[in-house]
Amino acid sequence: MEGVDYLGDERRKAEFDVDEMKIVWAGSKHAFDLTDRMSKMVASDPVFRKDNRTMLDRKALFKSTLEKSAHAFKRVDELNLTYEEATKLRFFIDEPTYTDLHWGMFVPAIRGQGTEEQQEKWLKLAEKMQIIGCYAQTELGHGSNVQGLETTATFDSTTDEFVIHSPTLTSSKWWPGGLGKVSTHAVVYARLIIEGQDHGVHGFIVQLRSLEDHLPLPGITVGDIGTKFGNGGYNTMDNGVLRFDHVRIPRNQMLMRVLQVSREGKCTYSDVPRQLIYGTMVYVRQNIVTDASIALSRAVTVATRYSCVRRQFGSQNGGMETQVIDYKTQQNRLFPLLASAYAFRFVSEWLKWLYGDVTARLNANDFSMLPEAHACTAGLKSLTTSATADAIEECRKLCGGHGYLCSSGLPELFAMYVPACTYEGDNVVLLLQVARFLVKTVSQLGSGKQPVGTTAYMGRAEHLMQCRSNVERAEDWLNPSAILEAFEARAFRMVVSCAQSLRNFPSPEEGFAELSADLAEVAIAHCQLIVVSKFIDKLKQEIPGKGVKQQLKNLCNIYALSLLHKHQGEFLATSSITAEQASLANTQLRNLYSQVRPNAVALVDSFNYTDHYLGSILGRYDGNVYPKLYEAAWKDPLNESVVTDGYVEYIKPLLKGKLHLSRL
Amino acid sequence: MEGVDYLGDERRKAEFDVDEMKIVWAGSKHAFDLTDRMSKMVASDPVFRKDNRTMLDRKALFKSTLEKSAHAFKRVDELNLTYEEATKLRFFIDEPTYTDLHWGMFVPAIRGQGTEEQQEKWLKLAEKMQIIGCYAQTELGHGSNVQGLETTATFDSTTDEFVIHSPTLTSSKWWPGGLGKVSTHAVVYARLIIEGQDHGVHGFIVQLRSLEDHLPLPGITVGDIGTKFGNGGYNTMDNGVLRFDHVRIPRNQMLMRVLQVSREGKCTYSDVPRQLIYGTMVYVRQNIVTDASIALSRAVTVATRYSCVRRQFGSQNGGMETQVIDYKTQQNRLFPLLASAYAFRFVSEWLKWLYGDVTARLNANDFSMLPEAHACTAGLKSLTTSATADAIEECRKLCGGHGYLCSSGLPELFAMYVPACTYEGDNVVLLLQVARFLVKTVSQLGSGKQPVGTTAYMGRAEHLMQCRSNVERAEDWLNPSAILEAFEARAFRMVVSCAQSLRNFPSPEEGFAELSADLAEVAIAHCQLIVVSKFIDKLKQEIPGKGVKQQLKNLCNIYALSLLHKHQGEFLATSSITAEQASLANTQLRNLYSQVRPNAVALVDSFNYTDHYLGSILGRYDGNVYPKLYEAAWKDPLNESVVTDGYVEYIKPLLKGKLHLSRL
Repeated sequence: MEGVDYLGDERRKAEFDVDEMKIVWAGSKHAFDLTDRMSKMVASDPVFRKDNRTMLDRKALFKSTLEKSAHAFKRVDELNLTYEEATKLRFFIDEPTYTDLHWGMFVPAIRGQGTEEQQEKWLKLAEKMQIIGCYAQTELGHGSNVQGLETTATFDSTTDEFVIHSPTLTSSKWWPGGLGKVSTHAVVYARLIIEGQDHGVHGFIVQLRSLEDHLPLPGITVGDIGTKFGNGGYNTMDNGVLRFDHVRIPRNQMLMRVLQVSREGKCTYSDVPRQLIYGTMVYVRQNIVTDASIALSRAVTVATRYSCVRRQFGSQNGGMETQVIDYKTQQNRLFPLLASAYAFRFVSEWLKWLYGDVTARLNANDFSMLPEAHACTAGLKSLTTSATADAIEECRKLCGGHGYLCSSGLPELFAMYVPACTYEGDNVVLLLQVARFLVKTVSQLGSGKQPVGTTAYMGRAEHLMQCRSNVERAEDWLNPSAILEAFEARAFRMVVSCAQSLRNFPSPEEGFAELSADLAEVAIAHCQLIVVSKFIDKLKQEIPGKGVKQQLKNLCNIYALSLLHKHQGEFLATSSITAEQASLANTQLRNLYSQVRPNAVALVDSFNYTDHYLGSILGRYDGNVYPKLYEAAWKDPLNESVVTDGYVEYIKPLLKGKLHLSRL
Repeated sequence: MEGVDYLGDERRKAEFDVDEMKIVWAGSKHAFDLTDRMSKMVASDPVFRKDNRTMLDRKALFKSTLEKSAHAFKRVDELNLTYEEATKLRFFIDEPTYTDLHWGMFVPAIRGQGTEEQQEKWLKLAEKMQIIGCYAQTELGHGSNVQGLETTATFDSTTDEFVIHSPTLTSSKWWPGGLGKVSTHAVVYARLIIEGQDHGVHGFIVQLRSLEDHLPLPGITVGDIGTKFGNGGYNTMDNGVLRFDHVRIPRNQMLMRVLQVSREGKCTYSDVPRQLIYGTMVYVRQNIVTDASIALSRAVTVATRYSCVRRQFGSQNGGMETQVIDYKTQQNRLFPLLASAYAFRFVSEWLKWLYGDVTARLNANDFSMLPEAHACTAGLKSLTTSATADAIEECRKLCGGHGYLCSSGLPELFAMYVPACTYEGDNVVLLLQVARFLVKTVSQLGSGKQPVGTTAYMGRAEHLMQCRSNVERAEDWLNPSAILEAFEARAFRMVVSCAQSLRNFPSPEEGFAELSADLAEVAIAHCQLIVVSKFIDKLKQEIPGKGVKQQLKNLCNIYALSLLHKHQGEFLATSSITAEQASLANTQLRNLYSQVRPNAVALVDSFNYTDHYLGSILGRYDGNVYPKLYEAAWKDPLNESVVTDGYVEYIKPLLKGKLHLSRL
């Protein structure tokens, strides 16, 4: 029946103030109001419907995305939205598209790397969308190794131009979003060549398509790189391929904030600190961590609600079967993911603070915290995106067979999310950067250099090498200091042990290469400690609302203790805890699951997602799953005709064909 | 350049006889010849092309699959293929379709559950494909819990008919493959109701569509359930929904081999042993384990070859960059998966033997081995499918960004593979069945009942509780008995510990529910031991071919030691090994990686997959990746026109529209 809340019983079980929790999740009352308003605006606008998305072919899908983008900016204009509002509007449309790159990469690149004169000229055009730009860095042959890019920008002093050229097939630009079919301009990263000398990789503004008829300009070959993972996913985006055949641009289209090339071809570095790039990286990666918490919380919402709707086995005397959320195996898989969503949310809040702190210090020419800030954001990007990608797929499996239907929303969410493990730094490459920093930090402990920020705990080296956990009963694991000490000891001892092993190799580089798998594990241990400690810090704040803090405490403990179980081997191998204490943690974990169980639906309601944004029949707010699944099935294109297309050609002949199949 | 083998250098490094390894992988010379011949036949037939598959919309995709199926059976007839050959032909077409269910479920169901008379009538029609059938068991509301199915088959003694009916929405049949748009008949599982009494779930042959015009018969509502995960994947299959409105069938269309219903409505059980069903389950699950090894080996082939092609970082003095396969982090992720592919292959060979053994015993009315055989096949199905699903995604990530393109083949392989974790028994439900059996086995040890088969090791209880690993140096881990003892001790001690904890609960059922997450881990530990021990058994056989056995030894050790590392916590918590021994295992693992490295490409060549079957540009045999990626991009439908469809409506107005966007 329409209008009935089939999850009402679940909601009535909640032991905390859901409205207050919504504000905690959003970060502030202002943020809650903004997201609530914009998400409802998108949900109520028929142009933004997405329930048919997975049934469209690539061309129809792409065209519908173009329509949504155009409509979005029309709305922004009509309603005179602020940047913040417009960003949320785009966000809730929930489809990757060229405007993400235009606003998120092209504009910031010019702002960050262009001179004032260049900003004046290009930002004016870009900010009114009179040109549309993308960020053309990655090439067919080079992704992670930016310094290995092959595209060339050769200075021709006779004409005062740069000649942009793709010297090899692998130098073709490949992947940039918005490039394939839409962008009129690009910031192109290319090797600056002056009189045969290579000055490294720099950015150049290059026009790609005519502003009159949208045709590629002479010397430009551009197109889409083809279909990607998933039914919808990133197929709404025109990730592109681009080749240059000696394309000439004026000298003043090289972005020259850091390095200037003069009329004579002379290079001069400005006094703009080159470390500025780290500020940008902290910013970008903080956003990625926020996105992880969002993607994860969506998946968890679907799995939690459907686990309450779905019943299987356990019927007694002809009564109802058991809700699958009541099975401990389901709780043991689902609740740590619910806890992770909150944990990632809070660590991303802290990263937002860190970005502000880093920026303020940069402006004051204080670069002391940069290596630590860079390492921890790189590590947290890696940790949260890998965990989220796995968790979305786990949530899909937690929905049983129906999670495999596109109407569950989870296949598309997964396909859309997984690139986060690769873009903005491959997750394994990032972990090795973190590990390198940690080993260096440990090696400097003797020299009296005090570790800072998230590595400050390493300053208590002696204690961390000697301490023994004093947990004696399961409840002792509810003590935040017991958890922190175990996580600190594990991480620190792992770093120290790796640092020692490295000394057994002829050279540090050789050791680093050989032990890289261990080093990646060290980095994860350190990053998990950061997430746990930021969650604990959050709990030290005042949090209003009946029962809200208790729920968060439970989730924090579940996050920490489930990691402790999962990585038991490291805690035991470093003697940070004993086998008996590990077993007590497991007992406590089961108690915590029982406490979360009645609050589970309310804890996902607190994310405040509209049914439109969730895009999942299994995750519907009202729990009215089966009638809606049934209804949706009939909308599949295959059901347009009762007798299938192909029957006459390929089925009837088989049925009537008198096959011999004599040896079958 | 065409014709050049870019992986030739890699192939020349191989230290073993690849042709002999191909036979080891295939299982026999006969099996090798058969698969080689049929895979090449499919690859060379243009009707079976699949490189455009991910670009078709659902209707076009489905129609092309119908064409392939019809063409396949035309070829089977023309070439007068045997059952074995026809099965391989279908296999290499590599697209799920209705004929899989017709031959794999409908025909066997009639053969297994039909009386001789029924077999005579229906198999004759089915085996010439004059009818096409499917297997209609799962319902919208019931998957795992077959005994909870709601469809009813009520005997009407006045007309000597069964009335098949869907009493609720959730009783709608949901998921059966081949049902949605193709099948003319189905074996429908329904509750047998006679004079108001429920006699449980049984199978009934029901005609769904007219053999004249393919229209659904009166009282039948049937259609496709909608788009599923992935671009191609299972979208070639018409998984269906089916509702009955009092559909009448003659009494003799109930499958009556086990239970007969007489003209008067009297039920009589035949003397056919009801345990026969276990034989079928062993058979089906053995096939699933084989499929796991195949899917995994495909993914590993792609990741291994492309890891040799791809270079990133590490260029010295302007030379080539490092092949990514030379990074230890890459090896540490990839080589255990390569080893798993071989491990799963050999355990599936052993399962094939087990099926024969079980069948022979059943025929001799010996049911003694059934519980153990059932438990171990259930467990191995769960273990291998979960590991394979994760591994395919890991292989995709190992290919960097390009793994996200459909042309890499990996997204589709993943989407096609993951349902294996859910169908034929949800993997977690299966693990709990195994755990239940293990706990029972341990509890009976005292009573003198000797454990059999894969649990035989538990007979050495005293030794396993006391033994201490005698590994002192990394090389000691190459000793199969050291590995076996550690795995046996870990599994046994985990079972014993769980069995002890269960006693602390008021009732066994309560304890089982509460400890189910731990119990699932126990089951995994036991199943990993089985896989390791069957690999070790394989190495005891004579294996011809220069260097072949040495390669397999390396892979066996990698499989075991990488598991030992991954589950270090369990080995340490049970004191099966010490932290020092765990660390030595890691050292040995790195040595083994170095030994596998030069053989990596040859080890995946040994799977003998055609480029057609692999369906991956990244995994091409000749390694000519980048030109072919570039070429493929231009075939995407989005590139049909230079100026994109939607430009005039949605991009031009934006560029020319003089948006104010005054607050952005």
